[in-house]
Amino acid sequence: MGGDYAPESIVEGAILASSLGVNLTLFGNEDEVNRVLDGRDFSNIKIQHTEEKVDMGDKVASVLRKIPETSLGLAARSASEGDSDGVISAGHSGASVLVASKYLKRKGVRKPVLGTFMPTSDNPVFLLDVGANVDTKAEDLLMFAQLGSEFYSFWSGKKSPTVGLLNIGSEKGKGDRESAKAYELMEMNASAGEFNFVGNIEGRQVGGQGEEINVVVCDGFVGNVILKFAEGMAISLMTMFGSELKKSAKNNIFMPLAKSAIKGSLKNVKKRLDYSEYGGAPLLGLTKPFFICHGSSNPKAIFNAVKNMKNLIMRQNGEKND
Amino acid sequence: MGGDYAPESIVEGAILASSLGVNLTLFGNEDEVNRVLDGRDFSNIKIQHTEEKVDMGDKVASVLRKIPETSLGLAARSASEGDSDGVISAGHSGASVLVASKYLKRKGVRKPVLGTFMPTSDNPVFLLDVGANVDTKAEDLLMFAQLGSEFYSFWSGKKSPTVGLLNIGSEKGKGDRESAKAYELMEMNASAGEFNFVGNIEGRQVGGQGEEINVVVCDGFVGNVILKFAEGMAISLMTMFGSELKKSAKNNIFMPLAKSAIKGSLKNVKKRLDYSEYGGAPLLGLTKPFFICHGSSNPKAIFNAVKNMKNLIMRQNGEKND
Repeated sequence: MGGDYAPESIVEGAILASSLGVNLTLFGNEDEVNRVLDGRDFSNIKIQHTEEKVDMGDKVASVLRKIPETSLGLAARSASEGDSDGVISAGHSGASVLVASKYLKRKGVRKPVLGTFMPTSDNPVFLLDVGANVDTKAEDLLMFAQLGSEFYSFWSGKKSPTVGLLNIGSEKGKGDRESAKAYELMEMNASAGEFNFVGNIEGRQVGGQGEEINVVVCDGFVGNVILKFAEGMAISLMTMFGSELKKSAKNNIFMPLAKSAIKGSLKNVKKRLDYSEYGGAPLLGLTKPFFICHGSSNPKAIFNAVKNMKNLIMRQNGEKND
Repeated sequence: MGGDYAPESIVEGAILASSLGVNLTLFGNEDEVNRVLDGRDFSNIKIQHTEEKVDMGDKVASVLRKIPETSLGLAARSASEGDSDGVISAGHSGASVLVASKYLKRKGVRKPVLGTFMPTSDNPVFLLDVGANVDTKAEDLLMFAQLGSEFYSFWSGKKSPTVGLLNIGSEKGKGDRESAKAYELMEMNASAGEFNFVGNIEGRQVGGQGEEINVVVCDGFVGNVILKFAEGMAISLMTMFGSELKKSAKNNIFMPLAKSAIKGSLKNVKKRLDYSEYGGAPLLGLTKPFFICHGSSNPKAIFNAVKNMKNLIMRQNGEKND
């Protein structure tokens, strides 16, 4: 297990999630995990011991060398061998992509792709790729569209989610070389009924304005920058609101009395924007579900990741059983 | 003149700006301009008549054919011939880039580059390119850095503004092919004293969090998407705040009494995020200042564009501002 607050956050998150009726295996240092468990015993939490782990500063080559025995490697192998139904990690996200690629990649997928929900509207857009791939080709973008559409269907139950291509204009032919080419590929595949392509999508729509859209695909450089920009901008705007409200409180005698209600509103907005409510970004193109959690995940984020993964697996199995 | 509210907004904006002690020439249909002027006469506002103009739906080829006689073409020619010190347009931004490229491009610049201030912090980041260039090469990014640094210096008076490269990680070598290459080029040029390169910048910093940064360069596809995403997200967050405050107003009797103060705070945040306060995005790499205004510019946006351009020209000429 990894992450800024491992093992505490992960173990406490697993304890919270143990009530969900799932069997959890914690991959990591047994002594450290037991220190956090502090005598508490859960019949559905197992520990698989390893001392090897990926550190945030590790380079790709060194990660690849030690992968098989790291907590991440063991977790992925356990999923590939059928001992686990999915993997959740809050550790090194680049290493997660490498490990998932090595043990769990689906046939025909060049590299896994990372998606995330953008919490800027009531029906969050599922944006992918947000960082697993750069220098993306048109063919990759097409695959993102297929994988994103498939995932969104399982996730939400919506049969034919709308899929758009992130671009700098709405007309066909707009954008850089690969995006213009991707439009044509997607149009062809959509007309073959593979997914519900609705054309180019501009940044405003990803920001929650204009017509609702379910899935938006883009190069991982673009997606990663947007995701982090949104995190920064959310905090900046919250701060702006806070300081403006404070200023106006000086000129209105009722403001101090309304303070708790205003604070509650700010808190609710914060909650709607909080990644830990969403619980993990799905890595797609794999044979098993794989969620990458924020490095700073708290127990609630881990709990939500487990809950979401359980629901996803159930829906996927339900679909197959029908 | 162009824009969603032309000629009204442009003419009214020019009237507001006529008090700034500048000489303005309005390029457009004389009858329409006179209709808006409605008998009002300003000694420092001239009209140069043309019936040709670029329409929003025009394709590149047709723009190129009619350019010389369009209001945009005449304005750019007037600047290139020394009859004007700068150009402001709220029309077709793609056409503005084409026209500026044809008449005003500096030697050694491949294509002009569009920059804009991101209003997400007290010291807004100047982001470029936000849409004039796609499929950007490392050499282009280097030029963006040079032009951005030069502009920021004139604009703010700061001698050695910090310049960063937008990327998906802070370490050297991160990102896609061209960004990784651009890092090396910028490092070399920075050590030669050309500008103050501070390394890779992640999305969060552009969103106003982390260490302050003055100029951030990126490919125009990425920049355009971020800019429009920010516009969308700002509206979405304002709406979220509004609806949360409304909800909590039901449970707190003082909220209705504090309403005007709360509304004032929301308005102040809105004002800080409002493009029209900034008045135009500078197109760089030209022999004369050229501002592209939002298509939906109101008179205040036009006024601010003129004011900012006047100040910029004075600083470039070594004069102090009013």
